[in-house]
Amino acid sequence: MAAEGSFAAGEGAMQVLEELGRRAKDAALKLAVVNTETKNRALEEMADALRARREEILAANEEDRVAGRESGMSAALMDRLTLNEKRIEEMAVGLLEVATLPDPVGEIISGWRLPNGLEIQKVRVPLGVVGIIYEARPNVTVDAAGLCVKSGNAVILRGSSSAFRSNRTLTEIIAAAAEGAGLPAGCIQLVPLADRESAKALMRMHDYLDVLIPRGGAGLIRTVVEESMVPVIETGVGNCHTYVDASADLEMALRIVINAKCQRPGVCNAMETMLVHEAVAGEFLPRAAEALRERGVVLRGCPRTREILPDAEEASEEDWYEEYLDLILAVKVVGGVEEAIGHINRYGSKHSEAIITRDYTAARSFVTQVDAADVYVNASTRFTDGGQFGLGAEIGISTQKLHARGPMSLRELTSTKFIIYGDGQVRT
Amino acid sequence: MAAEGSFAAGEGAMQVLEELGRRAKDAALKLAVVNTETKNRALEEMADALRARREEILAANEEDRVAGRESGMSAALMDRLTLNEKRIEEMAVGLLEVATLPDPVGEIISGWRLPNGLEIQKVRVPLGVVGIIYEARPNVTVDAAGLCVKSGNAVILRGSSSAFRSNRTLTEIIAAAAEGAGLPAGCIQLVPLADRESAKALMRMHDYLDVLIPRGGAGLIRTVVEESMVPVIETGVGNCHTYVDASADLEMALRIVINAKCQRPGVCNAMETMLVHEAVAGEFLPRAAEALRERGVVLRGCPRTREILPDAEEASEEDWYEEYLDLILAVKVVGGVEEAIGHINRYGSKHSEAIITRDYTAARSFVTQVDAADVYVNASTRFTDGGQFGLGAEIGISTQKLHARGPMSLRELTSTKFIIYGDGQVRT
Repeated sequence: MAAEGSFAAGEGAMQVLEELGRRAKDAALKLAVVNTETKNRALEEMADALRARREEILAANEEDRVAGRESGMSAALMDRLTLNEKRIEEMAVGLLEVATLPDPVGEIISGWRLPNGLEIQKVRVPLGVVGIIYEARPNVTVDAAGLCVKSGNAVILRGSSSAFRSNRTLTEIIAAAAEGAGLPAGCIQLVPLADRESAKALMRMHDYLDVLIPRGGAGLIRTVVEESMVPVIETGVGNCHTYVDASADLEMALRIVINAKCQRPGVCNAMETMLVHEAVAGEFLPRAAEALRERGVVLRGCPRTREILPDAEEASEEDWYEEYLDLILAVKVVGGVEEAIGHINRYGSKHSEAIITRDYTAARSFVTQVDAADVYVNASTRFTDGGQFGLGAEIGISTQKLHARGPMSLRELTSTKFIIYGDGQVRT
Repeated sequence: MAAEGSFAAGEGAMQVLEELGRRAKDAALKLAVVNTETKNRALEEMADALRARREEILAANEEDRVAGRESGMSAALMDRLTLNEKRIEEMAVGLLEVATLPDPVGEIISGWRLPNGLEIQKVRVPLGVVGIIYEARPNVTVDAAGLCVKSGNAVILRGSSSAFRSNRTLTEIIAAAAEGAGLPAGCIQLVPLADRESAKALMRMHDYLDVLIPRGGAGLIRTVVEESMVPVIETGVGNCHTYVDASADLEMALRIVINAKCQRPGVCNAMETMLVHEAVAGEFLPRAAEALRERGVVLRGCPRTREILPDAEEASEEDWYEEYLDLILAVKVVGGVEEAIGHINRYGSKHSEAIITRDYTAARSFVTQVDAADVYVNASTRFTDGGQFGLGAEIGISTQKLHARGPMSLRELTSTKFIIYGDGQVRT
């Protein structure tokens, strides 16, 4: 686009990004055939470099924090932005953990011989160039780069302006270490601009990027899904439900809803709405309300909930759609599992949904009919996580159906290639 | 959007499409749990209905053809548009073949038990609602609907205006048959508008569609990739190469390049550029040129090719990018396998690429370093096809890396869901 000599808005950003894109594409072709030992050594040297150069990282982060304070950044955002020795060590350990994970590249997923003698193999290969667009936390810079490198992908990172100095220093350190260990130049790059134009330009890079993964709040994700020409993997928004069935073990239900709501309310796999069967609502809701309120949870109920819990706030239609990410819980009394499934499929974000039941038929209906990435019977939705699932580190949790669904780890950063071995076959 | 009461351009189309979207979503939730026997019976009844109502189909098609003739449609397009008894029978047989394919839905892809006792299953589920946007051929209406139904997906079809009457009649017939056999209403729908606004509106339906698959020429595909907010699977564009190595069996090479170029030049897996090692160019090129010219092929060569074949046309830089879909072949002499790989990775469309060689190292370099969906050793690129690969009928050939790559059949029309069985586990 820029090559045509026009001077449209954003042309500067587009030129900068196209240069990054060209470097990344070159790097990706080389990185795709780098062996596992070299990639693991690079991850180890990246970890060493983070530890060795922590003073530089802390100094850059301090600059970001000063700017944040001056611009009146909230305490929560400031906490996400902050790096300290412990968090730098966690990033280093994260890279070393990725080094211990199996390399997905080169796996022969399937293979067969055709009647004409052709032999077909379906082989796992890197995606190519991965774009990550993310908000405040600087650790995403290192975590995402580590996962991309291990899976043989070049990565273009675009963090938020508030963490720009931290991200720039982190990227310089890990990119230098990766190249020092033998990975191709350009395999880890940060967009050197943090303005809106650079984000828009990144979303137009479909000639250079094979996928763009947004990591951040609902607003960022929505913008990327709507504006990107690059294929997107939608991550993260979790309006998760727990349905307490008539046959539930109510002690178990209580433990699970407390865990799902309170263990870490600000994350995507926390419960946002509790559905309770009318047959047990009278017994369960007062006990649940007491336990949840002790932990600071505010309840917003449907009319039938408020008959049982008169001091619950009134839930509006909007509450059923809400991802609070806070100590707020919407509560609805339902007539049975079918109504619960209907509610979830209507209002949910297809992330993580749970039923608490002792009834075989209810469990079976729930797991087959609820349309979500992760559907639980008798367990907390908080388990939706690559690490908890035993998949290793996680690049995000996909809530779309294309390519990957649920927690995404190394394998979800790959594509496939058919290799066909012949002896002169032609088509007739 | 339309609900907000604005009257922006295209609002009419958007309202119509949202109604289709709602019906499709409802249908998809029901279709996801319909068993294989019912789906197969529906496919059989769809086939029967096509046969029984062929006079209606031919009459509608005749109206499209009259309109096409009046608007001066080219002979090639007119051929694609035309239905006759044989083509109707082929559509019916295609549906019956899909009925015989294994149902991908419900496959347990993997499963494991975590240390805390949680049991995780990764299960294959339908994508949900599939949009297909396609050009002239009315058979796509039936073929795509059959594959979507079998894989448990609701489908919204948007064909071209030139085939609108044919598509409408076909859709009415197969949708009625499907519903008669027990599939939910709304599982097969045609966009009842064929204007540009309706295509644009379809691309904005990300709240209703899980994927949009364009089938048609490069222009259509490019437009959909650039404008769609719905996740897209890019299909079809094939700038395919055959590289004749120094060590090639030249008889075999000749058979393969003739097949790859001439067997059906208008399709995406036909060869568009031939690369020849300099060591055999002097011997091979004159023989290949003679054989290809006998079959009507026009050659466009690089300077070194034209030293050997002085009467070849001169290839420009643009020729290396071109998907001719015609009896034209670009020819380039290269210094070896590395140069061939570099050329393909630079100019190719990542579809199908072949090396003809007896050299183990050259073959291995080619299959690992060429970045394409389908990479061949000693075989014609014309084999890239779901049917030829033994995958059953094909919804298209993906040239992107996300979700599916290469020929796509029933399995590529599915997603996955994690089902987690617990006994009261909470996260600590």
